[in-house]
Amino acid sequence: MVNYPNKKGSFQRAKVGHSNRGMSFESMINESNDYYVSNNIANIHKKPIPIQIVKVDYPSRAGAVIKEAYYKVPSTTDYNGIYKGFHIDFEAKETINKTSFPLSNIHTHQIEHLINIKKHGGISFLLIFFKAKDEIYLLETNYLEEFFIRSASGRKSISYTELQVCGHLVKEGIAPRVDYLKIVDKLVKKAWAFFVW
Amino acid sequence: MVNYPNKKGSFQRAKVGHSNRGMSFESMINESNDYYVSNNIANIHKKPIPIQIVKVDYPSRAGAVIKEAYYKVPSTTDYNGIYKGFHIDFEAKETINKTSFPLSNIHTHQIEHLINIKKHGGISFLLIFFKAKDEIYLLETNYLEEFFIRSASGRKSISYTELQVCGHLVKEGIAPRVDYLKIVDKLVKKAWAFFVW
Repeated sequence: MVNYPNKKGSFQRAKVGHSNRGMSFESMINESNDYYVSNNIANIHKKPIPIQIVKVDYPSRAGAVIKEAYYKVPSTTDYNGIYKGFHIDFEAKETINKTSFPLSNIHTHQIEHLINIKKHGGISFLLIFFKAKDEIYLLETNYLEEFFIRSASGRKSISYTELQVCGHLVKEGIAPRVDYLKIVDKLVKKAWAFFVW
Repeated sequence: MVNYPNKKGSFQRAKVGHSNRGMSFESMINESNDYYVSNNIANIHKKPIPIQIVKVDYPSRAGAVIKEAYYKVPSTTDYNGIYKGFHIDFEAKETINKTSFPLSNIHTHQIEHLINIKKHGGISFLLIFFKAKDEIYLLETNYLEEFFIRSASGRKSISYTELQVCGHLVKEGIAPRVDYLKIVDKLVKKAWAFFVW
């Protein structure tokens, strides 16, 4: 058993014997996107973290050093790009929760953004990494929207069982590590079926 | 006459009487994108500046302060999003040059990225603000690619005359300030015309 630091600086045990031990969900997705780009399958990237820069020094010719900056609340989602001519937009979240995914993990305006992308004819979704199960689910925006609406007056999370029913289990492998485009292929077919000829 | 600082900290005179005096090209485009988003016309955003964070302090509960970070070379373009179901991707550049746009203003991998987006079925282009003329041109990626190929053995810039011939003049107004989607409408029509039925 090895201890890996998580984002908040505390430690959690990584399960040995699983394909993704020690690797952050973000790294797993970035690696998959690199695979897609280099194999000419898609062009999807993670957006940089939005930062408010306050102070920049120029100590040498070599370049600028940012000396004071703050994290900003992201106005959109983390990932977007293009696949088979479709605009792809998604957010990726992981949870150590065993029984549900708390909706507080995702900003309201990010959900609104995903809904908006769908309205403009894009394919948008949420990727959820259930660490306790070592399973990744792709949840289409229309279901996310339903769970979000429900949260206003009821349950504020998506149960693991609901996710199994409403989401798509994403196969994990070596290359690509998180082959979410296999699921997106189904969504592309749906998008074409709904297309007005 | 008013002096406005430009990005590099030096000063240049702003021309009074022009609609965009004092406003950076980036701000003009951001304002236009805000207009498109809030009027439900498109969903296009500027990506955050990519930064390598080295040191973060947590002085209080209020949040983190980035104390050391560096600018990274962007791996993609500055703007992307969706319009009329199409993936939109572009880079925006301004020049104070009077007779030409130097291709050194845009990174090689950004040109490659624009070409790649086009291959995947997206609409990609370069927006050039010719400050001396107070004119904005939209240059489709296929022309940008041609000028880029030429630059390997010949002229390393796009002349103003070439831009007038190969590019599309973008109308400037109040809202949206830079109505580049009017030109993209033409590209959408072309994309449909080239579509394999």
